[in-house]
Amino acid sequence: MNRVRLLTPGPVELHPRARLALAGPQVHHRTEPAREAFRAVRRGLAAAFGTEGEVLLLTASGTGAMEALVGGLFAPGERVAVPVSGKFSERWAEIAGALGLEVARGDLPWGQPLTPEEVLGLMAPGTRGVLLTHSETSTGVLNPLAEIAAAVRAAHPDALIVVDAVTSLFLAPLALDALGVDAALAGSQKGLMLPPGLAFVALGSRAQARLRPYGYYLNLDRERRVQEKGESAFTPAINLVLAARAVLEELLPDLDAHLKRKRAYLERLYAIGEGAGLRPVPAREGVPAPMELRTPATAAFHLPEGLPFEAVRDAFLARGARIAGGQGALKGRSFRISLMGHYPGPEADWAFGVFREVLAELL
Amino acid sequence: MNRVRLLTPGPVELHPRARLALAGPQVHHRTEPAREAFRAVRRGLAAAFGTEGEVLLLTASGTGAMEALVGGLFAPGERVAVPVSGKFSERWAEIAGALGLEVARGDLPWGQPLTPEEVLGLMAPGTRGVLLTHSETSTGVLNPLAEIAAAVRAAHPDALIVVDAVTSLFLAPLALDALGVDAALAGSQKGLMLPPGLAFVALGSRAQARLRPYGYYLNLDRERRVQEKGESAFTPAINLVLAARAVLEELLPDLDAHLKRKRAYLERLYAIGEGAGLRPVPAREGVPAPMELRTPATAAFHLPEGLPFEAVRDAFLARGARIAGGQGALKGRSFRISLMGHYPGPEADWAFGVFREVLAELL
Repeated sequence: MNRVRLLTPGPVELHPRARLALAGPQVHHRTEPAREAFRAVRRGLAAAFGTEGEVLLLTASGTGAMEALVGGLFAPGERVAVPVSGKFSERWAEIAGALGLEVARGDLPWGQPLTPEEVLGLMAPGTRGVLLTHSETSTGVLNPLAEIAAAVRAAHPDALIVVDAVTSLFLAPLALDALGVDAALAGSQKGLMLPPGLAFVALGSRAQARLRPYGYYLNLDRERRVQEKGESAFTPAINLVLAARAVLEELLPDLDAHLKRKRAYLERLYAIGEGAGLRPVPAREGVPAPMELRTPATAAFHLPEGLPFEAVRDAFLARGARIAGGQGALKGRSFRISLMGHYPGPEADWAFGVFREVLAELL
Repeated sequence: MNRVRLLTPGPVELHPRARLALAGPQVHHRTEPAREAFRAVRRGLAAAFGTEGEVLLLTASGTGAMEALVGGLFAPGERVAVPVSGKFSERWAEIAGALGLEVARGDLPWGQPLTPEEVLGLMAPGTRGVLLTHSETSTGVLNPLAEIAAAVRAAHPDALIVVDAVTSLFLAPLALDALGVDAALAGSQKGLMLPPGLAFVALGSRAQARLRPYGYYLNLDRERRVQEKGESAFTPAINLVLAARAVLEELLPDLDAHLKRKRAYLERLYAIGEGAGLRPVPAREGVPAPMELRTPATAAFHLPEGLPFEAVRDAFLARGARIAGGQGALKGRSFRISLMGHYPGPEADWAFGVFREVLAELL
């Protein structure tokens, strides 16, 4: 079987150190080497999130961590604001609704970066929090988190700011404490270049103070108490924890350079696509968004009139690469190409070459 | 670093086909090969559970699947019976309580196999279900599921029978439909010999008919609708799904022989331990339980007077093997040794030899 490389925005090409760790024999989670890895990963992720608060590990996909945060930070009936402009911000709204919160949902055009005014417009007095999506993978937008957080903190100092950082952690600079973000989450199968199955929840001091018991398995209040001691309430995906430690050891000492490289890759992808006449999805009123409002997690392009997604997908597949289509409202109308996974220089050059070839063939 | 083999009742020594599968490159879950594996694993697990109903895969530990079942099958305020005689039956009671059910909890001696009468004694008229633990890993008991299920079905035909099969699936014969069991769950890091991180939920027809929406991430009602189509609602631990398929291909064609081997291993462990004067934990009124009421998942022995668990553990470790202590009420008072993982004949003989040496040294 020919090897097909993933140019999808998660799951992604695994980091070789992750693969090496995952090929090892089973380690028991109730042993000191496992506890040590667990603690090291919590510390390393806290550094990457930019928080002096707690990072908790959950054996779940990122969606499990989203629910844990909504359930742990807000009681049924409390009001939260959710600006929806893509599939993942929509998920925030769905979860908040399923858990019985009062959701002030703002439906904004998909692909449009949020503005502080749009977010504030959803926040009536008494709003307990706002659920944001930093990198909206479904549209390619990187929302201006610093501006939004500053505006929310100024106008609603008591509202908690909760951020989906699933595809911004290890891809765009993050500094939760400095920005005044109270809580965030991410998952293993994105910027950390691991398989799916492990989720991370970051809790600043205000979020920790507000934690309430929720359910059983996704109860952050309980997890915090045991994870402080290096334990986990239930059997964790310890193999992924060990793999996470191996990758963090390589990423953290040089995280800035890593982020710059990912950003440079993104600019290259857009240069190739826009150079061939493609329109980027991130835009406001038809005008392409500035590069800093496009997520390094993935480039997203509108499909040109008359070109079906399947033709683009298959042209990549014929060259040994898999890309992703649009999601939700953009399904069948866009495609996405991502170097989020492990792509050192030569492999990245190969991917750029494939992209150029595909465009030359199809356009 | 010397390799320490796991003689713990989960996590366990991995199946070599699992390790091979896990060493591979990342596969995207929204592709046909991944969907095919997903479907094959659901079918294979249904055969192992002995049900023509549905098996759903959740990215979670077994505890997540327990919560999904309690939340999906019972509404807050409904009454369920939970006979508690070990750490995992206690967990059923905790989950049911956390989710607002009315729990008829029976506290029975740990290590004592349940009787149908003990279970029926907890079931007042109107009881909506009973939460059972088939193999109580914390004590080494295999509860007589057939007798209990028959008695419950006869006396309370409308009550749902929900079973924790975490350490009985692939270790003891299971036949949910034939026994009249409505729902069950298990996890990847036990009899299937995979790493932790994937849970399985089996739903017979009555359980399917009663499913109600619950929460968001652990919502079986939603998972059933998408998994019927070979999809999953959220990014699954697809690497574990692929590994599960590889192991199932080897286990399923000869499952009876596999179960007999595990049962023979257990008898050998008890023969060695009891031959040296150790008392098995599974017992009723001081009389050791018959072999068929001891779980093949693990042998469990009381520690002899004056012998600390640490001495036993360290004697095994010095020989390259890790065993487990007692849990909950049995902590510091018992130890457990398990061949649940991948132990072909020669490796099993090595484990028996180590056990004999340890006992010769310490007793």
